Amino acid sequence: MTKATTAIECRAVELNDLAWADFPSSLSKGGIKWKLLNVAPELGSWAAIFDCPAGSSFASHHHIGPGEYFLTKGRMEIRGGVEVGGETVTAPAYGYEATSAFHGKTYFPVDSEFYMTFLGPLQFVNEEGGATVALVTWDRAEAAWLASQG
Amino acid sequence: MTKATTAIECRAVELNDLAWADFPSSLSKGGIKWKLLNVAPELGSWAAIFDCPAGSSFASHHHIGPGEYFLTKGRMEIRGGVEVGGETVTAPAYGYEATSAFHGKTYFPVDSEFYMTFLGPLQFVNEEGGATVALVTWDRAEAAWLASQG
Amino acid sequence: MTKATTAIECRAVELNDLAWADFPSSLSKGGIKWKLLNVAPELGSWAAIFDCPAGSSFASHHHIGPGEYFLTKGRMEIRGGVEVGGETVTAPAYGYEATSAFHGKTYFPVDSEFYMTFLGPLQFVNEEGGATVALVTWDRAEAAWLASQG
Amino acid sequence: MTKATTAIECRAVELNDLAWADFPSSLSKGGIKWKLLNVAPELGSWAAIFDCPAGSSFASHHHIGPGEYFLTKGRMEIRGGVEVGGETVTAPAYGYEATSAFHGKTYFPVDSEFYMTFLGPLQFVNEEGGATVALVTWDRAEAAWLASQG
Repeated sequence: MTKATTAIECRAVELNDLAWADFPSSLSKGGIKWKLLNVAPELGSWAAIFDCPAGSSFASHHHIGPGEYFLTKGRMEIRGGVEVGGETVTAPAYGYEATSAFHGKTYFPVDSEFYMTFLGPLQFVNEEGGATVALVTWDRAEAAWLASQG
Repeated sequence: MTKATTAIECRAVELNDLAWADFPSSLSKGGIKWKLLNVAPELGSWAAIFDCPAGSSFASHHHIGPGEYFLTKGRMEIRGGVEVGGETVTAPAYGYEATSAFHGKTYFPVDSEFYMTFLGPLQFVNEEGGATVALVTWDRAEAAWLASQG
Repeated sequence: MTKATTAIECRAVELNDLAWADFPSSLSKGGIKWKLLNVAPELGSWAAIFDCPAGSSFASHHHIGPGEYFLTKGRMEIRGGVEVGGETVTAPAYGYEATSAFHGKTYFPVDSEFYMTFLGPLQFVNEEGGATVALVTWDRAEAAWLASQG
Repeated sequence: MTKATTAIECRAVELNDLAWADFPSSLSKGGIKWKLLNVAPELGSWAAIFDCPAGSSFASHHHIGPGEYFLTKGRMEIRGGVEVGGETVTAPAYGYEATSAFHGKTYFPVDSEFYMTFLGPLQFVNEEGGATVALVTWDRAEAAWLASQG
């Protein structure tokens, strides 16, 4: 290296400046919407907020890096919910989803909203141990978001 | 290695199960309170929520790793606020504070609250470029929190 | 949290205490061998050393997080080598492969050896943009290694 | 976000293209030299190789993020060496130094060389639990390196 490396810029966004976009229906059911808030390409992290109507859910996925959520509204059943060995949390709540955690079903019994940071991609799969349906890396997440902003 | 490494456990906490504790007055002014939500020792990350009354502020610090905040209530003036080249955001808002970012002053003009994830410690300093007052790593943050739970 | 979180333990291994194992032939050609040196489950990182005979190569893959290599012996053609826009390095050499980098072909024209740290998995694919053949996360890497230690 | 974020570039360096520079004598004894190989500003990581003559040592420091070394030559006594509860390794060897690990003394009884990746800074301290002497972040490491290249 012969010159100083440029530091990364700080940035901020007010959520009301962004419109909700449909989250891909191939990866969710029930009308989940989202706003992508940030991507950080060096580490592969990204941050988003999700609006999840009563009865909505995410398709089966693995976390390929730690994810941390902040449930701002409603209730979330994770890994099937507390009745089948997972967790059920009511807002306001925080959770840490570990690297390689498998989320067979993430379900919202009431209107809910959560903010989440992802350190690495989500791997959506057909079923437990099954084939990869989509590997949602920071750049795939961003491409999906930008496509919805057309 | 001769045996499989244990995966990290997922965990969750409902915020109303935790009481607010005073954030150290040596590092803040105006009655800031906090709840420590998680520490992740391998990476050195930690997550917390802060209650910041009108007129409160944090002392000067560097982010020694990226930090991401979600402002749930109120208004936050970062790096002096927009009037001096920093940023001022009104809830709901998201922000990414980059590695090595210097926060000379973080001020809350109205009652505010924010959730934040820290990938690495905060380095509180006397003044810009000055001596280290405190290096708030995940274990220091946890020790301070546990001491307040007496 | 009501008690202090246990810090992660430091660990070390002398390489001569480990025997070389065959790297999966579905992911490489030409007799590549490896030693898995570490996995870090919280972050999903892992470290290994690879012995690559003249003429060997790795199948097409994406880096799903930054990877850093240290080429201790020989020569490595990365992303097709310098002739097609990639890089060719001769030992001793260091390289940083960025998150989402695509390695269509990694080839060793002479007997080579390199040590590498991976922050996240390798996604082996059929062809550029193609279907996922294998997502080598820290736990898959470890399972493959342990199976070879029978 | 309204446009695609630029991916991070891959890069490589052959070590013989860089000259050894003196590592700061305030942080080491006995003539340690180094070559800085990379900095990654988003995550705050950096990579370097160190040439450590017989009898040389590093001053007391904490790892403020995980560090992984690859000892290519010689022998290294870590955390005082195996005689006082630390570790002593002979090349070729790999080691993982965990976040918050304290290295009271790192000593090289014979001519040694090691390559290391640092995820976050080194905090050099006066003594165990003592005042911060230097917080060697990616940007401080780079500034020291560039100053030596004059």
